[in-house]
Amino acid sequence: MLRTRLLTAAGALPLLIFLIGYAPEWSFSGTVLVLTGIGLWEYFSLTRAQCTLSPVIGKLWGMLVAFSMVSGDMRLIGTALSLGFMLIFILSLRDRYPARGIQTTSLFMLGVVYIGFLFPHVLWIHRGPEGAEWVFFILLVAMLGDTGGYVVGRAWGKRKLLPHISPGKTIEGGVGSICGNGVAALIAWQYLLPNRPASELVVLALLMGLLAQLGDLCESALKRACGAKDSGRFFPGHGGVLDRIDSLLFPIAFIYYYNTLWN
Amino acid sequence: MLRTRLLTAAGALPLLIFLIGYAPEWSFSGTVLVLTGIGLWEYFSLTRAQCTLSPVIGKLWGMLVAFSMVSGDMRLIGTALSLGFMLIFILSLRDRYPARGIQTTSLFMLGVVYIGFLFPHVLWIHRGPEGAEWVFFILLVAMLGDTGGYVVGRAWGKRKLLPHISPGKTIEGGVGSICGNGVAALIAWQYLLPNRPASELVVLALLMGLLAQLGDLCESALKRACGAKDSGRFFPGHGGVLDRIDSLLFPIAFIYYYNTLWN
Repeated sequence: MLRTRLLTAAGALPLLIFLIGYAPEWSFSGTVLVLTGIGLWEYFSLTRAQCTLSPVIGKLWGMLVAFSMVSGDMRLIGTALSLGFMLIFILSLRDRYPARGIQTTSLFMLGVVYIGFLFPHVLWIHRGPEGAEWVFFILLVAMLGDTGGYVVGRAWGKRKLLPHISPGKTIEGGVGSICGNGVAALIAWQYLLPNRPASELVVLALLMGLLAQLGDLCESALKRACGAKDSGRFFPGHGGVLDRIDSLLFPIAFIYYYNTLWN
Repeated sequence: MLRTRLLTAAGALPLLIFLIGYAPEWSFSGTVLVLTGIGLWEYFSLTRAQCTLSPVIGKLWGMLVAFSMVSGDMRLIGTALSLGFMLIFILSLRDRYPARGIQTTSLFMLGVVYIGFLFPHVLWIHRGPEGAEWVFFILLVAMLGDTGGYVVGRAWGKRKLLPHISPGKTIEGGVGSICGNGVAALIAWQYLLPNRPASELVVLALLMGLLAQLGDLCESALKRACGAKDSGRFFPGHGGVLDRIDSLLFPIAFIYYYNTLWN
Protein backbone atom coordinates (compact mmCIF):
# COMPACT_ATOMS: atom_id res chain seq x y z
CA MET A 1 0.00 0.00 0.00
CA LEU A 2 2.71 2.45 1.06
CA ARG A 3 4.84 1.31 -1.85
CA THR A 4 2.05 1.89 -4.38
CA ARG A 5 1.49 5.31 -2.86
CA LEU A 6 5.15 6.27 -3.13
CA LEU A 7 5.40 5.00 -6.70
CA THR A 8 2.29 6.96 -7.71
CA ALA A 9 3.75 10.05 -6.07
CA ALA A 10 7.10 9.58 -7.84
CA GLY A 11 5.30 9.35 -11.16
CA ALA A 12 2.86 12.21 -10.60
CA LEU A 13 5.20 14.72 -8.95
CA PRO A 14 7.33 15.69 -11.97
CA LEU A 15 4.20 16.12 -14.07
CA LEU A 16 2.63 18.28 -11.35
CA ILE A 17 5.76 20.42 -11.02
CA PHE A 18 5.89 20.90 -14.77
CA LEU A 19 2.18 21.82 -14.99
CA ILE A 20 2.30 24.34 -12.15
CA GLY A 21 5.71 25.87 -12.73
CA TYR A 22 6.55 25.67 -16.41
CA ALA A 23 3.64 24.70 -18.68
CA PRO A 24 1.46 27.37 -20.34
CA GLU A 25 -1.50 28.64 -18.32
CA TRP A 26 -4.13 26.90 -20.46
CA SER A 27 -2.74 23.45 -19.67
CA PHE A 28 -2.95 24.16 -15.92
CA SER A 29 -6.50 25.48 -16.34
CA GLY A 30 -7.38 22.42 -18.42
CA THR A 31 -6.06 20.05 -15.76
CA VAL A 32 -7.99 21.84 -13.03
CA LEU A 33 -11.17 21.69 -15.13
CA VAL A 34 -10.72 17.95 -15.76
CA LEU A 35 -10.16 17.29 -12.04
CA THR A 36 -13.19 19.43 -11.19
CA GLY A 37 -15.24 17.45 -13.71
CA ILE A 38 -14.21 14.10 -12.23
CA GLY A 39 -14.76 15.45 -8.70
CA LEU A 40 -18.28 16.55 -9.66
CA TRP A 41 -18.89 13.20 -11.31
CA GLU A 42 -17.96 11.45 -8.08
CA TYR A 43 -20.00 13.79 -5.91
CA PHE A 44 -23.17 13.36 -7.93
CA SER A 45 -22.65 9.59 -8.12
CA LEU A 46 -22.20 9.49 -4.33
CA THR A 47 -25.38 11.47 -3.65
CA ARG A 48 -27.42 9.79 -6.39
CA ALA A 49 -29.59 7.82 -3.95
CA GLN A 50 -30.40 10.97 -1.94
CA CYS A 51 -31.42 13.07 -4.95
CA THR A 52 -34.34 12.68 -7.32
CA LEU A 53 -33.01 14.82 -10.16
CA SER A 54 -30.66 13.28 -12.71
CA PRO A 55 -26.99 13.59 -11.62
CA VAL A 56 -26.22 14.76 -15.17
CA ILE A 57 -27.95 18.08 -14.42
CA GLY A 58 -25.79 18.56 -11.33
CA LYS A 59 -22.59 17.78 -13.21
CA LEU A 60 -23.53 20.20 -15.99
CA TRP A 61 -24.33 22.96 -13.51
CA GLY A 62 -21.07 22.35 -11.64
CA MET A 63 -19.06 22.49 -14.86
CA LEU A 64 -20.84 25.68 -15.89
CA VAL A 65 -19.78 27.27 -12.60
CA ALA A 66 -16.23 25.93 -13.04
CA PHE A 67 -15.97 27.35 -16.57
CA SER A 68 -17.25 30.71 -15.34
CA MET A 69 -14.51 30.60 -12.67
CA VAL A 70 -11.90 30.04 -15.41
CA SER A 71 -13.20 33.15 -17.19
CA GLY A 72 -12.78 35.09 -13.95
CA ASP A 73 -15.75 37.28 -15.00
CA MET A 74 -17.83 37.96 -11.89
CA ARG A 75 -20.98 38.51 -13.96
CA LEU A 76 -20.65 35.04 -15.49
CA ILE A 77 -19.96 33.43 -12.10
CA GLY A 78 -23.01 35.15 -10.60
CA THR A 79 -25.13 34.09 -13.55
CA ALA A 80 -23.97 30.46 -13.40
CA LEU A 81 -24.59 30.25 -9.65
CA SER A 82 -27.93 32.10 -9.55
CA LEU A 83 -29.64 30.85 -12.68
CA GLY A 84 -28.46 27.26 -12.04
CA PHE A 85 -29.82 27.45 -8.51
CA MET A 86 -33.18 28.73 -9.72
CA LEU A 87 -33.39 26.05 -12.40
CA ILE A 88 -32.66 23.20 -9.97
CA PHE A 89 -35.09 24.60 -7.39
CA ILE A 90 -37.80 24.80 -10.08
CA LEU A 91 -37.07 21.33 -11.50
CA SER A 92 -37.29 19.82 -8.02
CA LEU A 93 -40.92 21.02 -7.79
CA ARG A 94 -41.85 17.99 -9.87
CA ASP A 95 -40.99 15.73 -6.95
CA ARG A 96 -44.13 14.28 -5.35
CA TYR A 97 -42.58 14.83 -1.92
CA PRO A 98 -41.52 18.46 -1.28
CA ALA A 99 -39.07 17.38 1.45
CA ARG A 100 -37.23 15.23 -1.06
CA GLY A 101 -37.26 18.03 -3.62
CA ILE A 102 -35.72 20.44 -1.13
CA GLN A 103 -33.11 17.84 -0.18
CA THR A 104 -32.23 17.43 -3.87
CA THR A 105 -31.90 21.18 -4.40
CA SER A 106 -29.75 21.65 -1.31
CA LEU A 107 -27.46 18.68 -2.06
CA PHE A 108 -26.99 19.93 -5.64
CA MET A 109 -26.10 23.38 -4.31
CA LEU A 110 -23.65 21.85 -1.80
CA GLY A 111 -21.82 19.87 -4.47
CA VAL A 112 -21.60 22.75 -6.91
CA VAL A 113 -20.21 25.15 -4.30
CA TYR A 114 -17.94 22.54 -2.69
CA ILE A 115 -16.26 21.40 -5.91
CA GLY A 116 -17.28 23.55 -8.88
CA PHE A 117 -16.81 26.84 -7.01
CA LEU A 118 -14.09 26.18 -4.39
CA PHE A 119 -11.59 24.12 -6.36
CA PRO A 120 -11.13 26.50 -9.36
CA HIS A 121 -9.96 29.18 -6.92
CA VAL A 122 -6.58 27.52 -7.42
CA LEU A 123 -6.56 29.03 -10.92
CA TRP A 124 -6.91 32.51 -9.47
CA ILE A 125 -4.05 31.87 -7.04
CA HIS A 126 -1.94 30.57 -9.93
CA ARG A 127 -2.60 33.70 -12.01
CA GLY A 128 -1.72 36.06 -9.15
CA PRO A 129 1.73 37.38 -8.19
CA GLU A 130 4.11 34.51 -7.31
CA GLY A 131 1.19 32.29 -8.29
CA ALA A 132 3.09 29.08 -9.01
CA GLU A 133 4.99 29.47 -5.71
CA TRP A 134 1.78 29.76 -3.70
CA VAL A 135 0.29 26.68 -5.39
CA PHE A 136 3.46 24.74 -4.62
CA PHE A 137 3.26 25.96 -1.02
CA ILE A 138 -0.30 24.63 -0.66
CA LEU A 139 0.66 21.26 -2.14
CA LEU A 140 3.77 21.04 0.02
CA VAL A 141 1.78 21.72 3.20
CA ALA A 142 -0.80 19.07 2.21
CA MET A 143 1.81 16.45 1.25
CA LEU A 144 4.12 16.88 4.24
CA GLY A 145 1.08 17.08 6.52
CA ASP A 146 -0.18 13.78 5.10
CA THR A 147 3.25 12.20 5.46
CA GLY A 148 3.70 13.42 9.04
CA GLY A 149 0.24 12.20 9.94
CA TYR A 150 0.85 8.82 8.36
CA VAL A 151 4.25 8.20 9.99
CA VAL A 152 3.33 9.42 13.47
CA GLY A 153 -0.13 7.82 13.36
CA ARG A 154 1.43 4.49 12.38
CA ALA A 155 4.08 4.62 15.11
CA TRP A 156 2.22 6.13 18.07
CA GLY A 157 -1.44 6.48 17.03
CA LYS A 158 -3.80 5.41 19.82
CA ARG A 159 -6.58 7.89 20.63
CA LYS A 160 -9.24 8.16 17.91
CA LEU A 161 -9.95 11.65 16.57
CA LEU A 162 -13.55 11.40 15.27
CA PRO A 163 -14.39 7.66 15.14
CA HIS A 164 -17.97 8.18 13.90
CA ILE A 165 -16.62 9.85 10.75
CA SER A 166 -13.14 8.52 10.06
CA PRO A 167 -12.19 5.47 12.14
CA GLY A 168 -8.54 5.39 11.04
CA LYS A 169 -7.55 8.89 12.18
CA THR A 170 -5.85 9.40 15.54
CA ILE A 171 -5.04 12.49 17.60
CA GLU A 172 -1.34 11.52 17.50
CA GLY A 173 -1.51 11.39 13.71
CA GLY A 174 -3.09 14.83 13.70
CA VAL A 175 -0.17 16.18 15.75
CA GLY A 176 2.31 14.52 13.36
CA SER A 177 0.46 16.18 10.51
CA ILE A 178 0.87 19.59 12.14
CA CYS A 179 4.63 18.95 12.47
CA GLY A 180 4.72 18.15 8.75
CA ASN A 181 2.95 21.47 8.04
CA GLY A 182 5.62 23.32 10.03
CA VAL A 183 8.40 21.68 8.05
CA ALA A 184 6.59 22.64 4.83
CA ALA A 185 6.51 26.28 5.97
CA LEU A 186 10.28 26.30 6.53
CA ILE A 187 10.97 24.73 3.14
CA ALA A 188 8.64 27.29 1.50
CA TRP A 189 10.43 30.11 3.31
CA GLN A 190 13.81 28.86 2.10
CA TYR A 191 12.96 28.02 -1.51
CA LEU A 192 9.55 29.34 -2.58
CA LEU A 193 8.59 32.59 -0.88
CA PRO A 194 11.82 33.89 0.70
CA ASN A 195 10.60 37.50 0.72
CA ARG A 196 7.82 36.61 3.16
CA PRO A 197 8.51 36.56 6.91
CA ALA A 198 8.95 33.03 8.22
CA SER A 199 6.39 33.70 10.97
CA GLU A 200 3.69 34.47 8.39
CA LEU A 201 4.42 31.28 6.45
CA VAL A 202 4.39 29.16 9.61
CA VAL A 203 1.04 30.57 10.75
CA LEU A 204 -0.43 30.12 7.25
CA ALA A 205 0.90 26.55 7.02
CA LEU A 206 -0.59 25.63 10.40
CA LEU A 207 -3.97 27.12 9.48
CA MET A 208 -3.86 25.40 6.09
CA GLY A 209 -2.92 22.12 7.76
CA LEU A 210 -5.86 22.45 10.13
CA LEU A 211 -8.22 23.24 7.25
CA ALA A 212 -6.78 20.32 5.26
CA GLN A 213 -7.45 17.85 8.06
CA LEU A 214 -10.93 19.25 8.69
CA GLY A 215 -11.67 19.28 4.95
CA ASP A 216 -10.59 15.66 4.78
CA LEU A 217 -13.03 14.86 7.58
CA CYS A 218 -15.81 16.78 5.80
CA GLU A 219 -15.38 14.63 2.73
CA SER A 220 -15.39 11.52 4.94
CA ALA A 221 -18.63 12.71 6.52
CA LEU A 222 -20.07 13.13 3.04
CA LYS A 223 -19.13 9.57 2.10
CA ARG A 224 -20.48 8.20 5.39
CA ALA A 225 -23.72 10.09 4.86
CA CYS A 226 -24.02 8.39 1.47
CA GLY A 227 -22.86 4.99 2.72
CA ALA A 228 -19.71 4.84 0.55
CA LYS A 229 -16.08 4.19 1.41
CA ASP A 230 -14.24 5.71 -1.55
CA SER A 231 -15.49 8.65 -3.57
CA GLY A 232 -14.60 7.05 -6.87
CA ARG A 233 -15.33 3.61 -8.17
CA PHE A 234 -13.70 3.93 -11.58
CA PHE A 235 -10.11 4.20 -10.26
CA PRO A 236 -9.89 0.76 -8.56
CA GLY A 237 -7.57 0.69 -5.56
CA HIS A 238 -6.72 4.38 -5.76
CA GLY A 239 -9.87 5.94 -4.34
CA GLY A 240 -11.31 8.84 -6.28
CA VAL A 241 -10.24 12.30 -7.30
CA LEU A 242 -12.39 13.72 -4.52
CA ASP A 243 -10.39 11.65 -1.99
CA ARG A 244 -7.24 13.33 -3.32
CA ILE A 245 -8.41 16.92 -3.54
CA ASP A 246 -10.58 16.97 -0.40
CA SER A 247 -7.73 18.25 1.77
CA LEU A 248 -6.82 20.93 -0.80
CA LEU A 249 -10.25 22.56 -1.23
CA PHE A 250 -10.43 24.51 2.04
CA PRO A 251 -6.75 25.66 2.06
CA ILE A 252 -7.11 26.84 -1.56
CA ALA A 253 -10.10 29.06 -0.77
CA PHE A 254 -8.44 30.28 2.42
CA ILE A 255 -5.15 31.24 0.74
CA TYR A 256 -6.87 32.92 -2.19
CA TYR A 257 -8.93 35.23 0.02
CA TYR A 258 -6.05 35.78 2.42
CA ASN A 259 -3.85 36.97 -0.42
CA THR A 260 -6.56 39.05 -2.08
CA LEU A 261 -7.86 40.80 1.01
CA TRP A 262 -4.63 41.30 2.97
CA ASN A 263 -2.15 42.12 0.23
CA MET B 1 -59.27 39.12 3.57
CA LEU B 2 -59.26 40.98 0.23
CA ARG B 3 -60.06 44.21 2.04
CA THR B 4 -57.15 43.80 4.48
CA ARG B 5 -54.89 43.08 1.53
CA LEU B 6 -55.99 46.20 -0.34
CA LEU B 7 -55.66 48.38 2.76
CA THR B 8 -52.16 47.05 3.42
CA ALA B 9 -51.24 47.72 -0.20
CA ALA B 10 -52.67 51.26 -0.04
CA GLY B 11 -50.57 51.94 3.06
CA ALA B 12 -47.37 50.30 1.85
CA LEU B 13 -47.35 51.54 -1.74
CA PRO B 14 -46.56 55.24 -1.20
CA LEU B 15 -43.74 54.29 1.19
CA LEU B 16 -42.37 51.82 -1.35
CA ILE B 17 -42.52 54.38 -4.16
CA PHE B 18 -40.75 56.95 -2.00
CA LEU B 19 -38.02 54.48 -0.96
CA ILE B 20 -37.31 53.27 -4.49
CA GLY B 21 -37.75 56.50 -6.42
CA TYR B 22 -36.86 59.41 -4.17
CA ALA B 23 -35.16 58.45 -0.90
CA PRO B 24 -31.35 58.39 -0.61
CA GLU B 25 -29.62 55.16 -1.58
CA TRP B 26 -28.70 54.18 2.00
CA SER B 27 -32.35 54.05 3.08
CA PHE B 28 -33.19 51.68 0.22
CA SER B 29 -30.14 49.53 1.09
CA GLY B 30 -31.16 49.57 4.74
CA THR B 31 -34.69 48.44 3.93
CA VAL B 32 -33.41 45.60 1.75
CA LEU B 33 -31.02 44.51 4.51
CA VAL B 34 -33.80 44.52 7.11
CA LEU B 35 -36.07 42.47 4.80
CA THR B 36 -33.20 40.07 4.10
CA GLY B 37 -32.61 39.72 7.84
CA ILE B 38 -36.26 38.92 8.55
CA GLY B 39 -36.36 36.54 5.57
CA LEU B 40 -33.29 34.71 6.89
CA TRP B 41 -34.83 34.64 10.36
CA GLU B 42 -37.92 32.97 8.92
CA TYR B 43 -35.95 30.51 6.80
CA PHE B 44 -33.81 29.33 9.67
CA SER B 45 -36.83 29.11 11.96
CA LEU B 46 -38.63 27.04 9.31
CA THR B 47 -35.74 24.60 8.88
CA ARG B 48 -34.84 24.47 12.57
CA ALA B 49 -36.15 20.91 13.04
CA GLN B 50 -34.15 19.65 10.04
CA CYS B 51 -30.84 21.18 11.14
CA THR B 52 -28.66 20.39 14.12
CA LEU B 53 -26.64 23.60 14.16
CA SER B 54 -28.04 26.67 15.88
CA PRO B 55 -30.16 28.83 13.53
CA VAL B 56 -28.26 31.86 14.86
CA ILE B 57 -25.16 30.73 12.95
CA GLY B 58 -27.15 30.50 9.73
CA LYS B 59 -28.68 33.95 10.21
CA LEU B 60 -25.26 35.46 10.91
CA TRP B 61 -23.75 33.82 7.85
CA GLY B 62 -26.66 34.98 5.68
CA MET B 63 -26.35 38.55 6.94
CA LEU B 64 -22.61 38.49 6.34
CA VAL B 65 -23.28 37.52 2.72
CA ALA B 66 -25.99 40.22 2.44
CA PHE B 67 -23.65 42.91 3.81
CA SER B 68 -20.94 41.82 1.38
CA MET B 69 -23.51 42.19 -1.41
CA VAL B 70 -24.22 45.76 -0.26
CA SER B 71 -20.50 46.51 -0.49
CA GLY B 72 -20.52 45.17 -4.06
CA ASP B 73 -16.90 44.04 -3.56
CA MET B 74 -16.52 40.65 -5.25
CA ARG B 75 -13.65 39.68 -2.95
CA LEU B 76 -15.83 40.22 0.12
CA ILE B 77 -18.74 38.28 -1.41
CA GLY B 78 -16.44 35.37 -2.28
CA THR B 79 -14.96 35.43 1.20
CA ALA B 80 -18.35 35.51 2.92
CA LEU B 81 -19.67 32.64 0.77
CA SER B 82 -16.55 30.43 0.87
CA LEU B 83 -15.36 30.87 4.44
CA GLY B 84 -18.92 30.65 5.80
CA PHE B 85 -19.47 27.45 3.85
CA MET B 86 -16.25 25.92 5.18
CA LEU B 87 -17.09 26.93 8.75
CA ILE B 88 -20.59 25.40 8.62
CA PHE B 89 -19.28 22.22 6.99
CA ILE B 90 -16.63 21.91 9.72
CA LEU B 91 -19.06 22.67 12.57
CA SER B 92 -21.45 20.02 11.27
CA LEU B 93 -18.74 17.39 11.79
CA ARG B 94 -19.68 17.40 15.47
CA ASP B 95 -22.99 15.75 14.59
CA ARG B 96 -23.04 12.09 15.67
CA TYR B 97 -24.82 11.22 12.41
CA PRO B 98 -22.93 12.32 9.30
CA ALA B 99 -26.11 12.25 7.18
CA ARG B 100 -27.71 14.80 9.51
CA GLY B 101 -24.57 16.92 9.47
CA ILE B 102 -24.56 16.98 5.67
CA GLN B 103 -28.25 17.84 5.63
CA THR B 104 -27.57 20.75 7.99
CA THR B 105 -24.71 22.06 5.86
CA SER B 106 -26.71 21.82 2.65
CA LEU B 107 -29.86 23.44 4.11
CA PHE B 108 -27.76 26.29 5.54
CA MET B 109 -26.15 26.78 2.13
CA LEU B 110 -29.57 26.76 0.44
CA GLY B 111 -30.99 29.44 2.76
CA VAL B 112 -27.97 31.69 2.48
CA VAL B 113 -27.93 31.56 -1.33
CA TYR B 114 -31.73 31.76 -1.65
CA ILE B 115 -32.20 34.82 0.55
CA GLY B 116 -28.85 36.33 1.59
CA PHE B 117 -27.39 36.16 -1.92
CA LEU B 118 -30.35 36.42 -4.33
CA PHE B 119 -32.43 39.15 -2.70
CA PRO B 120 -29.70 41.85 -2.39
CA HIS B 121 -29.25 41.71 -6.17
CA VAL B 122 -32.09 44.26 -6.14
CA LEU B 123 -29.57 46.76 -4.75
CA TRP B 124 -27.35 46.26 -7.77
CA ILE B 125 -30.29 46.77 -10.13
CA HIS B 126 -31.25 49.92 -8.22
CA ARG B 127 -27.72 51.34 -8.54
CA GLY B 128 -27.54 50.65 -12.28
CA PRO B 129 -28.74 52.89 -15.13
CA GLU B 130 -32.50 53.56 -14.84
CA GLY B 131 -32.26 51.55 -11.61
CA ALA B 132 -35.39 52.81 -9.90
CA GLU B 133 -37.40 52.24 -13.11
CA TRP B 134 -36.29 48.62 -13.34
CA VAL B 135 -37.15 47.96 -9.69
CA PHE B 136 -40.60 49.50 -10.27
CA PHE B 137 -40.99 47.31 -13.36
CA ILE B 138 -40.25 44.14 -11.33
CA LEU B 139 -42.73 45.14 -8.62
CA LEU B 140 -45.38 46.07 -11.17
CA VAL B 141 -45.06 42.70 -12.91
CA ALA B 142 -45.32 40.87 -9.58
CA MET B 143 -48.27 42.90 -8.32
CA LEU B 144 -50.35 42.85 -11.50
CA GLY B 145 -49.50 39.17 -11.95
CA ASP B 146 -50.75 38.46 -8.43
CA THR B 147 -53.89 40.50 -9.05
CA GLY B 148 -54.62 38.82 -12.40
CA GLY B 149 -54.07 35.40 -10.84
CA TYR B 150 -56.33 36.22 -7.91
CA VAL B 151 -59.19 37.61 -9.96
CA VAL B 152 -59.18 34.96 -12.70
CA GLY B 153 -58.50 32.12 -10.24
CA ARG B 154 -61.46 33.24 -8.13
CA ALA B 155 -63.82 33.53 -11.09
CA TRP B 156 -62.89 30.56 -13.27
CA GLY B 157 -60.27 28.54 -11.35
CA LYS B 158 -60.93 24.80 -11.61
CA ARG B 159 -57.94 22.70 -12.59
CA LYS B 160 -55.24 22.46 -9.87
CA LEU B 161 -51.70 23.48 -10.88
CA LEU B 162 -49.50 21.54 -8.43
CA PRO B 163 -51.81 20.27 -5.65
CA HIS B 164 -49.05 18.46 -3.71
CA ILE B 165 -47.26 21.79 -3.20
CA SER B 166 -49.84 24.58 -3.29
CA PRO B 167 -53.46 23.37 -3.14
CA GLY B 168 -54.99 26.80 -3.81
CA LYS B 169 -53.32 27.50 -7.17
CA THR B 170 -55.15 26.74 -10.40
CA ILE B 171 -54.08 26.65 -14.04
CA GLU B 172 -56.71 29.29 -14.85
CA GLY B 173 -55.23 31.56 -12.15
CA GLY B 174 -51.80 31.04 -13.70
CA VAL B 175 -53.13 32.20 -17.06
CA GLY B 176 -54.73 35.25 -15.42
CA SER B 177 -51.41 35.99 -13.81
CA ILE B 178 -49.71 35.95 -17.22
CA CYS B 179 -52.28 38.45 -18.54
CA GLY B 180 -51.48 40.71 -15.57
CA ASN B 181 -47.79 40.47 -16.48
CA GLY B 182 -48.56 41.59 -20.03
CA VAL B 183 -50.48 44.62 -18.78
CA ALA B 184 -47.55 45.47 -16.51
CA ALA B 185 -45.21 45.40 -19.52
CA LEU B 186 -47.39 47.89 -21.41
CA ILE B 187 -47.60 50.25 -18.43
CA ALA B 188 -43.81 50.03 -18.01
CA TRP B 189 -43.34 50.78 -21.70
CA GLN B 190 -45.59 53.84 -21.44
CA TYR B 191 -44.34 55.32 -18.16
CA LEU B 192 -41.14 53.69 -16.91
CA LEU B 193 -38.86 52.51 -19.72
CA PRO B 194 -40.20 54.21 -22.88
CA ASN B 195 -36.85 53.99 -24.68
CA ARG B 196 -37.00 50.19 -24.65
CA PRO B 197 -38.88 48.32 -27.40
CA ALA B 198 -42.29 47.13 -26.22
CA SER B 199 -41.53 43.62 -27.47
CA GLU B 200 -38.51 43.37 -25.15
CA LEU B 201 -40.53 44.51 -22.14
CA VAL B 202 -43.35 42.09 -22.92
CA VAL B 203 -40.98 39.13 -23.22
CA LEU B 204 -39.17 40.14 -20.03
CA ALA B 205 -42.46 40.58 -18.17
CA LEU B 206 -43.71 37.16 -19.26
CA LEU B 207 -40.43 35.49 -18.23
CA MET B 208 -40.45 37.36 -14.92
CA GLY B 209 -44.07 36.37 -14.35
CA LEU B 210 -43.21 32.73 -14.98
CA LEU B 211 -40.24 32.95 -12.60
CA ALA B 212 -42.41 34.71 -10.02
CA GLN B 213 -45.03 31.96 -10.08
CA LEU B 214 -42.40 29.22 -9.99
CA GLY B 215 -40.50 31.01 -7.22
CA ASP B 216 -43.72 31.23 -5.25
CA LEU B 217 -44.16 27.48 -5.66
CA CYS B 218 -40.53 26.90 -4.57
CA GLU B 219 -41.18 28.72 -1.32
CA SER B 220 -44.38 26.73 -0.85
CA ALA B 221 -42.39 23.52 -1.38
CA LEU B 222 -39.94 24.71 1.27
CA LYS B 223 -42.75 25.33 3.75
CA ARG B 224 -44.37 21.97 2.94
CA ALA B 225 -41.02 20.24 3.41
CA CYS B 226 -40.80 21.81 6.85
CA GLY B 227 -44.45 21.22 7.71
CA ALA B 228 -45.39 24.91 7.98
CA LYS B 229 -48.13 26.99 6.37
CA ASP B 230 -46.77 30.51 6.66
CA SER B 231 -43.10 31.44 6.69
CA GLY B 232 -43.48 33.88 9.56
CA ARG B 233 -45.22 33.41 12.86
CA PHE B 234 -44.51 36.83 14.34
CA PHE B 235 -46.63 38.80 11.83
CA PRO B 236 -50.02 37.26 12.75
CA GLY B 237 -52.50 37.14 9.89
CA HIS B 238 -50.07 38.62 7.34
CA GLY B 239 -47.83 35.64 6.65
CA GLY B 240 -44.11 36.31 6.73
CA VAL B 241 -41.67 38.45 4.80
CA LEU B 242 -40.57 35.35 2.89
CA ASP B 243 -44.17 34.87 1.73
CA ARG B 244 -44.06 38.40 0.31
CA ILE B 245 -40.63 38.37 -1.34
CA ASP B 246 -40.69 34.77 -2.62
CA SER B 247 -42.10 35.78 -5.98
CA LEU B 248 -39.54 38.62 -6.33
CA LEU B 249 -36.35 36.63 -5.70
CA PHE B 250 -36.07 34.83 -9.05
CA PRO B 251 -37.15 37.80 -11.24
CA ILE B 252 -34.64 40.03 -9.41
CA ALA B 253 -31.71 37.71 -10.15
CA PHE B 254 -32.92 37.19 -13.71
CA ILE B 255 -33.26 40.92 -14.49
CA TYR B 256 -29.93 41.80 -12.89
CA TYR B 257 -27.99 39.31 -15.01
CA TYR B 258 -30.03 40.08 -18.10
CA ASN B 259 -29.17 43.76 -17.84
CA THR B 260 -25.53 43.16 -16.95
CA LEU B 261 -24.76 40.58 -19.61
CA TRP B 262 -26.86 41.88 -22.51
CA ASN B 263 -26.45 45.63 -22.19
